[in-house]
Amino acid sequence: MTKVNVGRKILDANEKYALRNSELLAQHRNRCFNMISSPGSGKTTLLVRTISDLTGSVRIGVIEGDIRTDLDARRIRATNAPAIQIITEGACHLSAAQVNGALKKLPLDNLEMIFIENVGNLVCPSSFELGEDGKIVVLSVAEGDDKPAKYPGIFAKSKALLVNKIDLLTGGALIDFDLERVRADARRLNKSIEIFPVSAKTGEGMSAWYGWLHGQLGKA
Amino acid sequence: MTKVNVGRKILDANEKYALRNSELLAQHRNRCFNMISSPGSGKTTLLVRTISDLTGSVRIGVIEGDIRTDLDARRIRATNAPAIQIITEGACHLSAAQVNGALKKLPLDNLEMIFIENVGNLVCPSSFELGEDGKIVVLSVAEGDDKPAKYPGIFAKSKALLVNKIDLLTGGALIDFDLERVRADARRLNKSIEIFPVSAKTGEGMSAWYGWLHGQLGKA
Repeated sequence: MTKVNVGRKILDANEKYALRNSELLAQHRNRCFNMISSPGSGKTTLLVRTISDLTGSVRIGVIEGDIRTDLDARRIRATNAPAIQIITEGACHLSAAQVNGALKKLPLDNLEMIFIENVGNLVCPSSFELGEDGKIVVLSVAEGDDKPAKYPGIFAKSKALLVNKIDLLTGGALIDFDLERVRADARRLNKSIEIFPVSAKTGEGMSAWYGWLHGQLGKA
Repeated sequence: MTKVNVGRKILDANEKYALRNSELLAQHRNRCFNMISSPGSGKTTLLVRTISDLTGSVRIGVIEGDIRTDLDARRIRATNAPAIQIITEGACHLSAAQVNGALKKLPLDNLEMIFIENVGNLVCPSSFELGEDGKIVVLSVAEGDDKPAKYPGIFAKSKALLVNKIDLLTGGALIDFDLERVRADARRLNKSIEIFPVSAKTGEGMSAWYGWLHGQLGKA
């Protein structure tokens, strides 16, 4: 009797599409990053500011994953960047097949970099490869400095960590957040992770992040 | 040929344990609430303050769900309340079977109220009944006021919504958060949801929450 491991089969089917996505992106010479975080860490605000600040320098397209609503894709389109919304109807992560459909709707020949904004969830999306060149994890300082220790999976797998909303660490707010603890815990999980403390709201720290993105395109 | 729906079977097995938990809690006259939120909304800090402030008034026990580490259970035990840690080893939600094991380790005869702090995830835990009397969703103002619209499932199913970290709305921080939008969106999904704006840090708004908890025990 054969034991059927359904979890394994779902991942295998996903990997086939992830490979197709990776090939499609390579054909069109696009670099692709999969942004993963809790709900409300500021992924969309980070993307909006990044796209605006890099206008004329990097041609960016976005794939938005949400359980419901196209609120985020509309925010991206306001920057004039192309954005494709995937609504997962309750599913807790994007699949490579969904991303494959969205990639085919983007003008890949006119783009250099694709950001996939995954469903807000620090757990499940980290297990599903989408064919990206790397994962970017976003952590808001308001979430607390214990998150790399408590949710190690995504920190272990990411190329870069954006520590967002650092403006909340000054100016009278009451947030206790030890950036050095986050650095140490993230590096313990992942020696090569790049860490950028930023505020998408005030712009603080964003130039280092842009430098890294340029480097990913060989433009550094 | 029979089509096997594996997702359905997993839920059915979970429901059997949820029913057992519900019966066990009723036998011991314990009320039980399942707390669900994104990582870093402040669930543990809320519980620590609630337990401390209700010492001598409500006998509380806690079941902590985390992917890794027992950091949260240790924070609860510092209040002298009994806390059982479940480490899910990567799983994105608590199962009723895990909660069943933890309930049997708690001194239920000496308790009146059990809080289950679920894994930090606004999506998956809402689909798994644990045998609780109700779900409590926690939203930090730092996560943004669009969350009920974007993650409707848990807001539709919860008895109460704690809007936490309201101290960040004053005192110089730059947070844009429209509490009235949250109220309207949550009530659209769930007419009977009770909404408590609170700060577990400063104590603001907590007395209304305590009043509701007393009411749940018939002590109001």
